[in-house]
Amino acid sequence: MSVEKLEEYRDRIRTELDRVVDFWLKHSHDTQHGGFFTCIGREGKVYDELKYVWLQGRQVWMYCRLYRTMERFHRPEILQAAKAGGAFLRKFARVPSSDGGGGGSWKCAFCLTRDGKAVKVQRTIFSECFYILALDELSRVTGDTDMQAEAEQMMEQLVVWVRVDPSGLGRPPMPGDAPANGMAVPMMLLCLVQQLSEGRGQEAEQRYEELGAWCVRQILQHLQRGGTAVLESVSLDGAELPGCQGRLQNPGHALEAGWFLLQHAAARGDQQLQRTAVDKFMELPFQRGWDRQHGGLFYFLDVDGFCPTQLEWSMKLWWPHCEALVAFLMAYSRLKEPQLLDRFTQVYQYSFSHFSDAESGEWFGYLTQEGKVALDFKGGPFKGFFHVPRCLYMCERILDDLLEKKDR
Amino acid sequence: MSVEKLEEYRDRIRTELDRVVDFWLKHSHDTQHGGFFTCIGREGKVYDELKYVWLQGRQVWMYCRLYRTMERFHRPEILQAAKAGGAFLRKFARVPSSDGGGGGSWKCAFCLTRDGKAVKVQRTIFSECFYILALDELSRVTGDTDMQAEAEQMMEQLVVWVRVDPSGLGRPPMPGDAPANGMAVPMMLLCLVQQLSEGRGQEAEQRYEELGAWCVRQILQHLQRGGTAVLESVSLDGAELPGCQGRLQNPGHALEAGWFLLQHAAARGDQQLQRTAVDKFMELPFQRGWDRQHGGLFYFLDVDGFCPTQLEWSMKLWWPHCEALVAFLMAYSRLKEPQLLDRFTQVYQYSFSHFSDAESGEWFGYLTQEGKVALDFKGGPFKGFFHVPRCLYMCERILDDLLEKKDR
Repeated sequence: MSVEKLEEYRDRIRTELDRVVDFWLKHSHDTQHGGFFTCIGREGKVYDELKYVWLQGRQVWMYCRLYRTMERFHRPEILQAAKAGGAFLRKFARVPSSDGGGGGSWKCAFCLTRDGKAVKVQRTIFSECFYILALDELSRVTGDTDMQAEAEQMMEQLVVWVRVDPSGLGRPPMPGDAPANGMAVPMMLLCLVQQLSEGRGQEAEQRYEELGAWCVRQILQHLQRGGTAVLESVSLDGAELPGCQGRLQNPGHALEAGWFLLQHAAARGDQQLQRTAVDKFMELPFQRGWDRQHGGLFYFLDVDGFCPTQLEWSMKLWWPHCEALVAFLMAYSRLKEPQLLDRFTQVYQYSFSHFSDAESGEWFGYLTQEGKVALDFKGGPFKGFFHVPRCLYMCERILDDLLEKKDR
Repeated sequence: MSVEKLEEYRDRIRTELDRVVDFWLKHSHDTQHGGFFTCIGREGKVYDELKYVWLQGRQVWMYCRLYRTMERFHRPEILQAAKAGGAFLRKFARVPSSDGGGGGSWKCAFCLTRDGKAVKVQRTIFSECFYILALDELSRVTGDTDMQAEAEQMMEQLVVWVRVDPSGLGRPPMPGDAPANGMAVPMMLLCLVQQLSEGRGQEAEQRYEELGAWCVRQILQHLQRGGTAVLESVSLDGAELPGCQGRLQNPGHALEAGWFLLQHAAARGDQQLQRTAVDKFMELPFQRGWDRQHGGLFYFLDVDGFCPTQLEWSMKLWWPHCEALVAFLMAYSRLKEPQLLDRFTQVYQYSFSHFSDAESGEWFGYLTQEGKVALDFKGGPFKGFFHVPRCLYMCERILDDLLEKKDR
């Protein structure tokens, strides 16, 4: 692949990132209550004022990461919006614990009204994950050690819920519902381990080392059937689960886990894990998940070829494509195998020709199997300022790095 | 419309009902544990053994209704399967109450393992609704008064949950989540009022009269914007709710409510309610919901034309079409307005050419907007032996009735 080609990608990605940031700066800020509107129509109109905590946390994180690490985004308006988002989260996201405890609760709402009243609480850990992500990154920008400590304390609670006792999440145990190891949990915890320990010195690295290794083991349990398939849910001891749940594949999730694993391997010089990450958590889900007829990655698949029961299984969602772009470009930057750049190119071409909206900016999120826009909004209850800018940001940096080394 | 046309419809519908019943008799019975498999592939293969309580209850009800009211289905194997399903439900569906109470609990699981262990409990009333429907109809076939009493007692609990105190459902109240009037609740309660009082004498009719009238008022609250739109959720005092939730339309639900209202109106000779049912809960949702480009009824729409946030909004699902068939044929049989039969014909033609599977029997459940089969199974977590056979059963009876009168 020529330097020119990499430069072309880099320039397009850089321009796209600028446009995406502009879109959210312009349309998503709630200057009255703080925090962000995320239900934003094709051209930028807010069509619902609910505030989803996942997306509030993600936008704070992304703004701070851009502000902190990219010179052209080191702008006061970005910092101010991130701070207002962080203040909104700290003021409203945490809800009283279900066992009647008050201020000591670490459980966060899933969704809030515009002015911060809790609408819904999920009995999972993900609102809390994105709360931690936001607060840790914001504390790096502001130097607020209280905020950093709050993130670390919530992380301790999360680990207890996941590894010791989930009862505080509020889901009553059911005799027919054996606890499972879902891909999302160790993947998000590994992401948080990387977030919380990055650049915080040896003490922080050591504090999270065992947890990181545990997350990696939990993720690797999802590689099943003699290493030929990544399954979304397995039993706690790493066996295949019965029925649809056990056979479910989510190629985008596997690819996302792939680049988390690759980062983990790279930081430790673990060649074997690097190989597994690329072969099993990138190449394999890509082979299984790519639609040879219409292009794009399927959302869900059944490993035995049954039809998934998820109505949206055959749709093409933006985020698996974002994760695939990061995964293959990161893998190429490590291994320099041309096939990995080919994969990146294939996903890049599909994504930029199908998801990116040349007219009003940002990406569409949801296409039909055939690639037609099925839902035309730019933000919704699950699509905010996160997967697209994180992907563009990471790809731009990787390409910068590749091009810098090529120049030498 | 000629008698020949009505006869053609009737014959096709009768044949289709036979084929649908055969499909479930052949593929869905769990002879080991009782109850029914409902995750059944295109050709009849069971692809998951979980037992969804909604679908268990519905299948018991439908089998008993066919057994009790149609001579050709008065067959021992149908009765036996219904009894085994009822026994499975009574043995396993009710779960201990969340406040620690034991045998006194009326809450039902949403999903059970094949051998009856609870997997999941929804914090709504619908598992219980279908449990009641099943037990009441089964008690009519078997003459089991204990069973009838259990259904009536659960109904009393349901009414308390809906009208007095929902805390027993287990959903903690949230300050930002104002209680709403969702269409499904009064619609299902009205369905149960009709089920429990039908043919049980004046005392039973009187017992449920006030509740029926309340359900009708609650349903009519969903007619909004000066009578130009039926909205899926409104506030408890009948005002429009903010945001996506408030703007959501579900044409299939409105049509189903339409024929429940029509039955209620007919039983009472209420001409005004009959007119409202037909004009506002059939014609209006049909006008709004029919896809003029590709045919078929959309699943969800936003009354102001925003894109719904439900990923499946533009898909064509089997059940709204089933409800539309019943609604328009029932309306025609009451009012004899030719336009109503035209509507029936339009839905009939779409449904039989798109949903019905000439090869393996039964109907597909989920099509793309363009009418392609998107999920090819015949049964799943939400599709069992219910909407298709209920529709065919009711249409056959209405057509029999129409043809009998025409012959005279």
